[in-house]
Amino acid sequence: DKGGLQAQSADGKYSFKLGGRVHADATYSNDDKFLDSKGNPSEANDGTYIRRARMRFDGVFDKDWFYRTEADFADDSVAMKDIFIEYRGWNWGTITVGQQKQNFSRELQESSNDLMFMERSLMDVLNTDTVDRAIGLNYQTKGKGLISSNDAWVAKLGIYGDSIKPSRTGTEPENDYAGDEGWAVSSRLTYNPILEKDKLIHLGVAGNYRTPDDTGDVAESKALRYRYRTTNNQSNLTVLDSHDIKDVDNFKMLGLEGAGMYGPFSAGGEYTHTWIERKDGSEDLSFDGWYAEAAWSITGESRSYKEGNFGYLKPKNKFSLKNGHWGAWELATRWSEVNLNDREFRGGQMSQLTVALNWYINENVRFMADYNRNFNFSNPAVTTVGGGDPDALDTFMMRGQVAF
Amino acid sequence: DKGGLQAQSADGKYSFKLGGRVHADATYSNDDKFLDSKGNPSEANDGTYIRRARMRFDGVFDKDWFYRTEADFADDSVAMKDIFIEYRGWNWGTITVGQQKQNFSRELQESSNDLMFMERSLMDVLNTDTVDRAIGLNYQTKGKGLISSNDAWVAKLGIYGDSIKPSRTGTEPENDYAGDEGWAVSSRLTYNPILEKDKLIHLGVAGNYRTPDDTGDVAESKALRYRYRTTNNQSNLTVLDSHDIKDVDNFKMLGLEGAGMYGPFSAGGEYTHTWIERKDGSEDLSFDGWYAEAAWSITGESRSYKEGNFGYLKPKNKFSLKNGHWGAWELATRWSEVNLNDREFRGGQMSQLTVALNWYINENVRFMADYNRNFNFSNPAVTTVGGGDPDALDTFMMRGQVAF
Amino acid sequence: DKGGLQAQSADGKYSFKLGGRVHADATYSNDDKFLDSKGNPSEANDGTYIRRARMRFDGVFDKDWFYRTEADFADDSVAMKDIFIEYRGWNWGTITVGQQKQNFSRELQESSNDLMFMERSLMDVLNTDTVDRAIGLNYQTKGKGLISSNDAWVAKLGIYGDSIKPSRTGTEPENDYAGDEGWAVSSRLTYNPILEKDKLIHLGVAGNYRTPDDTGDVAESKALRYRYRTTNNQSNLTVLDSHDIKDVDNFKMLGLEGAGMYGPFSAGGEYTHTWIERKDGSEDLSFDGWYAEAAWSITGESRSYKEGNFGYLKPKNKFSLKNGHWGAWELATRWSEVNLNDREFRGGQMSQLTVALNWYINENVRFMADYNRNFNFSNPAVTTVGGGDPDALDTFMMRGQVAF
Repeated sequence: DKGGLQAQSADGKYSFKLGGRVHADATYSNDDKFLDSKGNPSEANDGTYIRRARMRFDGVFDKDWFYRTEADFADDSVAMKDIFIEYRGWNWGTITVGQQKQNFSRELQESSNDLMFMERSLMDVLNTDTVDRAIGLNYQTKGKGLISSNDAWVAKLGIYGDSIKPSRTGTEPENDYAGDEGWAVSSRLTYNPILEKDKLIHLGVAGNYRTPDDTGDVAESKALRYRYRTTNNQSNLTVLDSHDIKDVDNFKMLGLEGAGMYGPFSAGGEYTHTWIERKDGSEDLSFDGWYAEAAWSITGESRSYKEGNFGYLKPKNKFSLKNGHWGAWELATRWSEVNLNDREFRGGQMSQLTVALNWYINENVRFMADYNRNFNFSNPAVTTVGGGDPDALDTFMMRGQVAF
Repeated sequence: DKGGLQAQSADGKYSFKLGGRVHADATYSNDDKFLDSKGNPSEANDGTYIRRARMRFDGVFDKDWFYRTEADFADDSVAMKDIFIEYRGWNWGTITVGQQKQNFSRELQESSNDLMFMERSLMDVLNTDTVDRAIGLNYQTKGKGLISSNDAWVAKLGIYGDSIKPSRTGTEPENDYAGDEGWAVSSRLTYNPILEKDKLIHLGVAGNYRTPDDTGDVAESKALRYRYRTTNNQSNLTVLDSHDIKDVDNFKMLGLEGAGMYGPFSAGGEYTHTWIERKDGSEDLSFDGWYAEAAWSITGESRSYKEGNFGYLKPKNKFSLKNGHWGAWELATRWSEVNLNDREFRGGQMSQLTVALNWYINENVRFMADYNRNFNFSNPAVTTVGGGDPDALDTFMMRGQVAF
Repeated sequence: DKGGLQAQSADGKYSFKLGGRVHADATYSNDDKFLDSKGNPSEANDGTYIRRARMRFDGVFDKDWFYRTEADFADDSVAMKDIFIEYRGWNWGTITVGQQKQNFSRELQESSNDLMFMERSLMDVLNTDTVDRAIGLNYQTKGKGLISSNDAWVAKLGIYGDSIKPSRTGTEPENDYAGDEGWAVSSRLTYNPILEKDKLIHLGVAGNYRTPDDTGDVAESKALRYRYRTTNNQSNLTVLDSHDIKDVDNFKMLGLEGAGMYGPFSAGGEYTHTWIERKDGSEDLSFDGWYAEAAWSITGESRSYKEGNFGYLKPKNKFSLKNGHWGAWELATRWSEVNLNDREFRGGQMSQLTVALNWYINENVRFMADYNRNFNFSNPAVTTVGGGDPDALDTFMMRGQVAF
């Protein structure tokens, strides 16, 4: 991408790139006075925040070795994102070592710089704490012409430990019992029967298996917990909460993906199912979630797509007052649901409708406006002030974004 | 500035710059054994510290879009500073979105790389927690030739939410009630009846209005509090302390500025007045502070100045043993006061005299030595070991600075 | 080094460099179920972790002024490393101001990017909290031809306050009594009777004296404490622990170094002795530690060496599948011991045997495999589940490293 700082050695074998992103948000919620599960007043936070502020170092060494380290500093704290080394000198595929996203869900794989909506869907409640970044070893390979000359596929398989965080407890550990790390295997396969610049069909399937920390005769350091907070980082309003799910022996996840694009129009969806196997007499659990989305590039552009994931909408004409160009405009809508209820277990269930209007100034700057309606509540984590389930929670959000 | 890492695209529409700063300090205080308000021994910390250690990414995208993100890592923690996007493609002014300094006080606007003194004045006690950086939307415009062909003005107007920090409470929030963010409007207008390279007059006026977080029937997350700690980050000795000021409905601030420069001589001052309106029967409060400063560039340089703020003193001849050049030397003095007493309210009052000797090696390296005398105490936050107000507290500080 | 991002001004007086490193590790310990000193189950953590993730800014301003700031973000927190300004324009030596390593121990001075073993030796238990980085002023000078035309020496002398951390207690200090900082002097002298590219003898001696924080009639903020945790950051298993050593008046340290290299073979060792003088009737203490190591570059390279420290092993032929080159391979072994027992004082004692196999892909990428056997325990911080000292603890570690 133009605009980031890039440098290359004369022989082309070494290169380097600095990247970064800023997502500056404002949010407002309507009729948001609730009581939390302890009966305390609870409210979605209205105001401004920095959703992401990242710096990234990228590089290629001796042609075959790629490297990335990216840190997020929003909220005045550090959250390391990608930290990996990748070997690209082998014909049969790419090997990646370090912290990286696990192989699951198109929505999760796509960069927050590129997504059409300010936040991921309700389905992501099942994915964000289970198949997001972890430290591991991944193998990726891809091909063309499997069936016809116009198709393509990508296959990934990885084995993972945990992410950076869970291995430490407290800042002054002194024989804190941390136990051994758990491990996971995940795989994602995508296939495009049709793959052209302005026309494509995307199909995908992914699976994940994880065994949590070895617990022995000592409790696990961190129980599994699924939650939905309105407008993730900003608001403290937890609308859905499974609370701690203990005695987890392992869990399995299945993901299904489908999408299509025809010129400026696109539609797609995903489904995630999670099976949690528990021990010591605790009941097994089964949750699921899904979303369906549709988008229209008002100014006529087709979305970019690469190896199983959609990318940034590049405007045909960059915004310019002088030249009378208005960049690209995009209208998108999404319906998503998540269900954390299973027989007697009441983690809650809800639906969300999102409508988004996006303005792509150029390849680096974008403005977004999102409207979210959360509703169809069953066993949510909040009640109305008078008692009883809320009817709906409406949130309006805006974002200014720079990325390179 | 020469020395930072800069790159530009061939067509000049894209550019990028890496910046950074290190301020490495040592400090020593004399006769500094006191008792704090609880009667515990209290002392200004003598020793070494890193006052600032920052990395910055700057960039221009497609000519009109400027971007900045800067993080401070001193004290082994993250403090995000500027994080904003700026549109400069419009003839009638500049629009800035993101975290940025609010429009108040020349001393606050000027970079810590450029200030003649190692720390801001006592007046800054009123400004640092109220009109420093916040997330918001700012509009800036400027002009020349308002009255004669030799004058200039700059006008700024912004609306702000809060800064990064206050919106979160704790690291594992679970329906913590955060309430909605407050908001503020601030504006600063500066005017130069005379504006030449070595001769100028600076006049300024600024206003700020802020309503703190909406509290509803729940207490505010953070009360207003004014404090002065000797040599800000290093010493834990809080000499002046208003303690928590609760029930704040809103506060208003007025700032007045004046300065003049004639060749190597300059003088200036500022005044800040704060009116706090309170509710629930709490008494309204009114505080003020000011400083006056004078400086002489011994080696003859004039200070740089741009759009309402003074900048770095660029040496005529960079320091060089070989060429027998000694860089630039500057002598500066400042008197400042702050008064947090209002009728029965006893937040304390004090004066400070500062003398500074600065050595500008080149455009990137500077060494500073400051002597501070704090005195004229009335209701300070410390007492002498024998009881009673301290007579004076003398602090000597030195700094090595690199900035680019 | 090739590969990092570098830029230079046309006149060569200004330059800039971005650096970074990633150390991604996995570790596994055998028979590691113990009880800690409170009788709680305790275990070495098996799993993956990011040992180091750093970003660095380096620069030269006006030819004579060097600058560096480096931050580590592993574990989702900030740890500032080098932050200093260096004046190189003087013929008689170099002056460095800021946070830097103190002058002690070759093993400590050598970069973690270059060391032959994944972690420093048991001897480092005595050094890591006492002579690692601190804020101070250092003077360095060097020469050649002291005795013959083929020898060389380096001398360093520095005075130091504390490192970044100890000066703060808590995040919301309010007249916390921090006391004044302690100070230290350290000096290291190395001499090479023989110094050729593939043949050298290294001799070194270092001394350190430190007086901890002034305590007056108030307790010190941080007691001296020596500990060994298996595979430093990853595992919480503290195998050796002196616990808090209070009433320290001062401590003195002596370090002795010797090493030799002949073509692809090298051997070396170090010894550290610490004398702790205590007051208020507490007994003085005396500890020591040492290591001896030997290495063989299987592919024939000689190790690099510069001014008292060994560097990275640069492969004769970079790894390349196409050209049939396999990079450099290195086999190394180390025996190390530390003794924290002194008369009645029982801090513990142990030995460690390390065997390492390293694969140097090119100047930027390296893979490491280490086997550690900890044994010869006397008064360790853990016991077996049945009671009694452990026999041995075996740990196997692997690392993928990128550095530039």
